[in-house]
Amino acid sequence: MAILLTGLQAATMIGGYGLIPDAALLIEGPRIAWIGPRDSAPTGHETRDFQGRLLTPGLIDAHSHIVFGGHRAAEFEQRLQGASYEQIARAGGGILSTVTATRAATEDDLVAQALPRLDAMIRQGATTVEVKSGYGLTVRDEIKMLRAARRLGQMRAVTIRTTHLAAHAVPPEYAGRADAYIEEVAIPSLRAAQAEGLVDAVDAFCETIAFSPAQVDRLFTAARALGLRVKLHAEQLSDLGGAALAARHAALSADHLEYLSAEGIADMALAGTVATILPGAFYTLRETQMPPIAALRAAGVPMAVATDCNPGSSPMTSLTLAMNMACTLFRLTPEEALLGTTAHAARALGLSDRGTLAPGQRADLCLWDATHPAELSYRIGAEALHTRITGGRLDA
Amino acid sequence: MAILLTGLQAATMIGGYGLIPDAALLIEGPRIAWIGPRDSAPTGHETRDFQGRLLTPGLIDAHSHIVFGGHRAAEFEQRLQGASYEQIARAGGGILSTVTATRAATEDDLVAQALPRLDAMIRQGATTVEVKSGYGLTVRDEIKMLRAARRLGQMRAVTIRTTHLAAHAVPPEYAGRADAYIEEVAIPSLRAAQAEGLVDAVDAFCETIAFSPAQVDRLFTAARALGLRVKLHAEQLSDLGGAALAARHAALSADHLEYLSAEGIADMALAGTVATILPGAFYTLRETQMPPIAALRAAGVPMAVATDCNPGSSPMTSLTLAMNMACTLFRLTPEEALLGTTAHAARALGLSDRGTLAPGQRADLCLWDATHPAELSYRIGAEALHTRITGGRLDA
Ligand SMILES: [Zn+2]
Ligand SMILES: [Zn+2]
Repeated sequence: MAILLTGLQAATMIGGYGLIPDAALLIEGPRIAWIGPRDSAPTGHETRDFQGRLLTPGLIDAHSHIVFGGHRAAEFEQRLQGASYEQIARAGGGILSTVTATRAATEDDLVAQALPRLDAMIRQGATTVEVKSGYGLTVRDEIKMLRAARRLGQMRAVTIRTTHLAAHAVPPEYAGRADAYIEEVAIPSLRAAQAEGLVDAVDAFCETIAFSPAQVDRLFTAARALGLRVKLHAEQLSDLGGAALAARHAALSADHLEYLSAEGIADMALAGTVATILPGAFYTLRETQMPPIAALRAAGVPMAVATDCNPGSSPMTSLTLAMNMACTLFRLTPEEALLGTTAHAARALGLSDRGTLAPGQRADLCLWDATHPAELSYRIGAEALHTRITGGRLDA
Repeated sequence: MAILLTGLQAATMIGGYGLIPDAALLIEGPRIAWIGPRDSAPTGHETRDFQGRLLTPGLIDAHSHIVFGGHRAAEFEQRLQGASYEQIARAGGGILSTVTATRAATEDDLVAQALPRLDAMIRQGATTVEVKSGYGLTVRDEIKMLRAARRLGQMRAVTIRTTHLAAHAVPPEYAGRADAYIEEVAIPSLRAAQAEGLVDAVDAFCETIAFSPAQVDRLFTAARALGLRVKLHAEQLSDLGGAALAARHAALSADHLEYLSAEGIADMALAGTVATILPGAFYTLRETQMPPIAALRAAGVPMAVATDCNPGSSPMTSLTLAMNMACTLFRLTPEEALLGTTAHAARALGLSDRGTLAPGQRADLCLWDATHPAELSYRIGAEALHTRITGGRLDA
């Protein structure tokens, strides 16, 4: 079965916006069969007209933590009432409260709690969402999170890409023994999850408050021996040389990057590692050190833009809001912001079958109540989705 | 006909959150007939159970400019590509481009373009929205805008409060003749609009780039002679003593207030003038001077929080996002943020029949997929509306 979409302002996202005015696009099964100007479109197909609406690839969220137990609204409120981070930590707050709630939750609980977040992302145009583990921090609970993530992809018309992130934080029972945690939990949970087919990539948090470059290096070596690609939370709060380490392991992406050095940029450019920027966390934490956007641009490092949806530093479920924040706070152009949630986000996930509009690509598409792609970044959290198509199928 | 809502975590917004756990609320016609603990609720009514969901007053947006022609996405993009404000102004950009597009639009055009913005606000819980004129800047075009605003309220289940804002900017044909503009356009358009029943309040922009305190004073004097309440865009970019001027005219609110002085605060407190803070514009313009929140709090000045939805400095249509920004950027507590879109927003519009949950109040209600009101500010643009009720009627 084929269907021809007409009346499109198409942003192919090939070489920038790659605009085709008055375009048509032919879907055959789950793929794009043809795209080009309306007046040279293939004939004889069922047609659906979109009256001049903007067409883009379906949006891709390349960095999220939507599976977790509980939430941290009370902590958000306490902080604004004047409580210090220490007081909150002493009261069991911070990431530990999420770990406790995640460990206490069943797999079903985690699915039920993540679904509204995923649905909000979908309503704003997401067709592929990366989901990380990292709040279980035991072999059993990391696997539980990844199973929950996989199930989300069966329950909704969306592709879920799972990322193993046991090396997210050192749990209290391993306080001061991060090396032992890597050997006894991070690597064993990775092997067990991979044996179950639960892992699309491996991530870690490289920071003085989390894991050292040497610890991450051991985990990444184990991941690559399993044939898995890696990515890294790097240079968010300080420069530990994480991006260079990631590049040495041919990482798909290095993420956050506020304190990224010139050497890190050069290494990423050489390795083809994507820079995933996360303005939601920058905004929530009221950071002032911006990632080196101009230098990344000059070095030709592709930039992805993601929500970083998580209960602490970025309880955000809108990719278009992330795009607006990337422009407003980090001074990306709207074209870079949209590349960051399409072509470059696909690359950050190691996916070559989506993120652009071209024959053979998966028919993951968004039609917007807009005529130019800059409008998606201009509005603060554009509420502009008209129709969403995944694998060739229109949303009901 | 009466209906009893049960299974509620009610935030009455009287004296703060005013929480009633396991509450019930009786609606009779368009009003709240009873609210209190479930176990003492009146019996014998049709019942609808909300399974522990959060109930709040319907949200009130006390400051918006949703009626306008065109949009400014191209200008947003040009600026991020490196164009200066001067280059954009020379190319016909800035507020003038909106004035040109608004003058060219018919009343029907304005309604059609504003509706998606209003619908986005409604999807996020707005039940009352203030709408200003101020992009026509002729007698005819200001009235056209106000008529369009009134029509919006007939087309959707929402209360629209209209604000005359001809004193928003000096149009090019009056360059250097702001006094003449006040006499020949602002005041005559106000009188004509008021004669048509199109004006609920009168506003002006008091700033070096707009109107002086003396010019605003003349307009306000004319407004009050017509029996109208006033409000003012004051102290956004500099301190001209606008808040004190507003207070002298017993203004409903003074809005923006980044450069508000201690004297202005004292005058507002004495006059009972609400401080309406607009974090969306602060965010978009990347301002660094915060309104004096702690001093306003200490002086007991009620604070409202609004979207300021407009095509230049705040293309935002979500009150919950405005609440998150008020907390994150201005350090309001979530309780203050919710007061700012309920009880205090009602007061900023001179409405005493809404914004709180109590017998006799209008049954404008929001039920949220949340259990505690802090969650609304914690999530970045909460996508959490479950059911919206206006004048006692549930949304379809
Ligand atoms: Zn993260
Ligand atoms: Zn305004």
